[in-house]
Amino acid sequence: MRVLGVDPGLTRCGIGIVDGVPGRQLDLVGVGVVRTPHDLDHAQRLLRIHDGIEEWVVSHRPDAIAVERVFAQHNLQSVTGTSQAAGIAMMIAARHSIPVALHTPSEVKAAITGSGRADKAQVGAMVARILKLAEPPKPADAADAVGLAICHVWRGAATNRYAEAVERARATPRRSYRSHA
Amino acid sequence: MRVLGVDPGLTRCGIGIVDGVPGRQLDLVGVGVVRTPHDLDHAQRLLRIHDGIEEWVVSHRPDAIAVERVFAQHNLQSVTGTSQAAGIAMMIAARHSIPVALHTPSEVKAAITGSGRADKAQVGAMVARILKLAEPPKPADAADAVGLAICHVWRGAATNRYAEAVERARATPRRSYRSHA
Repeated sequence: MRVLGVDPGLTRCGIGIVDGVPGRQLDLVGVGVVRTPHDLDHAQRLLRIHDGIEEWVVSHRPDAIAVERVFAQHNLQSVTGTSQAAGIAMMIAARHSIPVALHTPSEVKAAITGSGRADKAQVGAMVARILKLAEPPKPADAADAVGLAICHVWRGAATNRYAEAVERARATPRRSYRSHA
Repeated sequence: MRVLGVDPGLTRCGIGIVDGVPGRQLDLVGVGVVRTPHDLDHAQRLLRIHDGIEEWVVSHRPDAIAVERVFAQHNLQSVTGTSQAAGIAMMIAARHSIPVALHTPSEVKAAITGSGRADKAQVGAMVARILKLAEPPKPADAADAVGLAICHVWRGAATNRYAEAVERARATPRRSYRSHA
């Protein structure tokens, strides 16, 4: 399973791609940042974010796209740009019929480090350890995007196992349980 | 000058197009709403908003696109969808090299009715009067989008006249004013 993680942002949009299945060694396929200059027109910046993410998706054909869930921040201007970048990533996924999942920063931290309150350095160090890299992917936005992709492989698999168990249970004739509905 | 106004929203995205120049009768070219169902996946809804706005832009080739500026609302979920729809409209404009302007709801109300506090019914009634329509465009999101487009023709022209005056002043040798810098 190949997952493309997106840490959305208007100035820096982190991209990280991993291949693998839970319980086996994951491979880092690609990592990068789509950047747009502050002095560029807002609409043009959104277009560059679009074109940059589109290029990663087309060239790496992920099976799933994981996007960081955006929350309210102190700066409304910044949350607007961030949620617009997230929306563009989701729209691109839909256009390519790739399933999208949103994960909160604490879900990613918890999945990667075991603690939802880990700092950026801890996440970067664990991402490097999980992927057997000499050092964390840089910049931090890229490491976060890789963390999102790892989190999605692991959480997605758990969700899939649950769905499969439900499926199996439905297919198997019930013995010890009888519905009185 | 043809202006396409967008009243952004995830459930209903209003579109209104007017032709004209300030001081002359404006013509309503088109009005409509891009709708997406509540139960559709968020990413799919954003794609439908994209494809709907794109269709209006391609078929009507506006000279400018005016988008309502999104402000914080009580419901963060709703402001996220709204600002994502606005971002998609801006990105489409950039892709077609069409200039984009943002106007606040009160700028539109003030331009159309003379009061920044006018209600939806007053805006709708004035839009109908300005465009010599038998009744306000429906639904309200569509009337708001038409109001945005009218506001942009009028304000844009004022901004242009100011820019031209500044340009003329720069080109003309100064007489009564001397800089002591």
